[in-house]
Amino acid sequence: MAGFSISEAEHKRRVERVRKYMIRRKLDALYLTNSTSMFYLTGYSFIATERPAALIIPFDGEITFMGPLLERDHVPLKTRIIEDVKTYTDYPGEKHPIEHFAEFLRDMGLAKKRIGIDNKAGAVGIWGYRGPPITKKLRESRFVDIKDLVPSMRLIKSQEEIALIRESAKWANLAHSLLQEYTAESLWDVEVALKASYEASIIMKKTLGPHYEPMRRTSPVSVGFRGQIGEMSAIPHAIATKQMIGKRDVVVTGASADVGGYSCELERTMIVGKPTAKQKRYFNVMVKAQDAAFEVFKPGVKCSEIDKATIKVFKKAGLMHLVKHHTGHGLGLEGHEPPWLDVGNEEPLHTGMVVSCEPGVYETGFGGFRHSDTVLITKDGAEVITYYPRNLDALTLS
Amino acid sequence: MAGFSISEAEHKRRVERVRKYMIRRKLDALYLTNSTSMFYLTGYSFIATERPAALIIPFDGEITFMGPLLERDHVPLKTRIIEDVKTYTDYPGEKHPIEHFAEFLRDMGLAKKRIGIDNKAGAVGIWGYRGPPITKKLRESRFVDIKDLVPSMRLIKSQEEIALIRESAKWANLAHSLLQEYTAESLWDVEVALKASYEASIIMKKTLGPHYEPMRRTSPVSVGFRGQIGEMSAIPHAIATKQMIGKRDVVVTGASADVGGYSCELERTMIVGKPTAKQKRYFNVMVKAQDAAFEVFKPGVKCSEIDKATIKVFKKAGLMHLVKHHTGHGLGLEGHEPPWLDVGNEEPLHTGMVVSCEPGVYETGFGGFRHSDTVLITKDGAEVITYYPRNLDALTLS
Repeated sequence: MAGFSISEAEHKRRVERVRKYMIRRKLDALYLTNSTSMFYLTGYSFIATERPAALIIPFDGEITFMGPLLERDHVPLKTRIIEDVKTYTDYPGEKHPIEHFAEFLRDMGLAKKRIGIDNKAGAVGIWGYRGPPITKKLRESRFVDIKDLVPSMRLIKSQEEIALIRESAKWANLAHSLLQEYTAESLWDVEVALKASYEASIIMKKTLGPHYEPMRRTSPVSVGFRGQIGEMSAIPHAIATKQMIGKRDVVVTGASADVGGYSCELERTMIVGKPTAKQKRYFNVMVKAQDAAFEVFKPGVKCSEIDKATIKVFKKAGLMHLVKHHTGHGLGLEGHEPPWLDVGNEEPLHTGMVVSCEPGVYETGFGGFRHSDTVLITKDGAEVITYYPRNLDALTLS
Repeated sequence: MAGFSISEAEHKRRVERVRKYMIRRKLDALYLTNSTSMFYLTGYSFIATERPAALIIPFDGEITFMGPLLERDHVPLKTRIIEDVKTYTDYPGEKHPIEHFAEFLRDMGLAKKRIGIDNKAGAVGIWGYRGPPITKKLRESRFVDIKDLVPSMRLIKSQEEIALIRESAKWANLAHSLLQEYTAESLWDVEVALKASYEASIIMKKTLGPHYEPMRRTSPVSVGFRGQIGEMSAIPHAIATKQMIGKRDVVVTGASADVGGYSCELERTMIVGKPTAKQKRYFNVMVKAQDAAFEVFKPGVKCSEIDKATIKVFKKAGLMHLVKHHTGHGLGLEGHEPPWLDVGNEEPLHTGMVVSCEPGVYETGFGGFRHSDTVLITKDGAEVITYYPRNLDALTLS
């Protein structure tokens, strides 16, 4: 049953586009190390570790995954786009994986060829990985930087991608409803977060049925506060807090759900009990800034214009000194991705882009105020895909 | 109250060691982009994104965090080791963050100086980050590769680190007990995983009290199967599965807990119902391989010898064709870290190293068998820090 992941037909179209690009750049093959790029082109998701892994797309030849033995039987279970798997036993091994990779490439007839590569090391190089760059182990080939190829393909979302993000928005909404229901004074935010994540995940699976599985995470739904409770809500990336939720605390939330590896972004500011006048003021200015941005979104508008629209509201309200980040970022497969809704980004919006809209104000020692919604750029303007209530009354916990 | 994180005194000792190294290498400053290295030296943990961030340790001068504005007020809440915070508004900004960083370094008197750096780009460069390398924006300074400095300091654990990993083992044990209790036929593995993670996290917080918070994750305990259910257990990094737990399934688990940012590793193979003869055989060979490794651990023994000890058992049992990875890896702050217990690694073990011991066999279409325990290398040999039962009877779910 379709609907919960990108179709094989779409993956084939993506590979087709990549091969057209190879003609223009006169490339004989692509060498991709970025696991998100690999997932985008093939639907194959794996845990990136110190063990080198790469996807090879020859212009004419079998699409090949090179990686550790432990991924060998995983690949064919997840994709038919990858036609061959070549493995080394483990890292570092008696022979370094990059030496194996150089041999595999020679075996594939790619010596003395022009290879587009997203990372000249030939491996993402995390968790203590050390090794020679592939460019030094296959000196007879010419490596060309194509770092921006797949990221630029990901900028504009297809109908299938938009459908997955829409589906994600539903489950983020359920998760957030449960989170709001369980949020109460004297509880630790993590307790509320884990309870709501657990329940929403199970309901999501029961609803979507036997064909659903999360593709890039181990659980379907993730909702919580990431430490943004009370005074700590003034720290946009607080991670965690020791404190319990208190009376009159402002709290900032976040919810998402993995549908075919894609996620929406939904964040809300809530007040525990009757809001103070100052909380009301900050909340309302933040909502006004978000509204101002919503008005400006449309194809052709520069990303900087969106950021300027929220800055104008904050300046007029005299709160610009409380702004700690720009208005938003692209989303889909990664936590953040281009385009950046930032004063410094003059690139225009295009139909099919999906971005977060999340202007915020943060007063140290007092609290933070930010909603984030997922916005799709449409032919005529924009559509807000997430639909959780945004007004103070709906977000006040009595 | 102490006990749940590394003390300030130990962070100061770490910085002291780094400054001694700077004398030997004639360095005027260090420029670190790796967030784990920053956490190791200062206790400050943040979410790494596309926004560049770096820790500057001048040989003589204030330890400085350079990063996005949204981290400014976060730093002093988490550490007193960092003495100054210099920020840019956001990425990409009207002026690129790396341009700001070059100016900050000039302001700190580091132009024309010798700077040790762990990444010549000057930023980790994830999530679509693009920018010029810092080495090109501060051409008057000399940059020296010190990529291995902090990772090599992390190889041998201090008494404080070992105490945190021991504490982590307790909560991993509780989480695993709950996981085993809840594992049953017809349930989705994610349901069992999230329920046990939720309950263990709450009990952990209630037990450790108001001074405890997770430091590098948003929740305290994480336990689950990562998709290793039934046939999918033959895929070591399965991520997730659609299937429900079935009768006679073999399942492979994983449990850890964040104590001061440190985690142990605890993994078990369990059988749902009466094991078949083949399941018993594979299980017992795997346990025997782990026992064989336990016997060999001691200071001075090469890492390769540990791997060879398990290989010997697998070969003797005629199961070497089912081995998909080496015997283990270092652990503490990251999922995997050096040293690698791999035939290709001739480095010796040292007192104070902490590694996983996790030989496994995996038969495609049948199942996977792997326990993982956390092992501390001691003066006389080794101590297994994790203590969950390893025998088949204890891990058979009736």
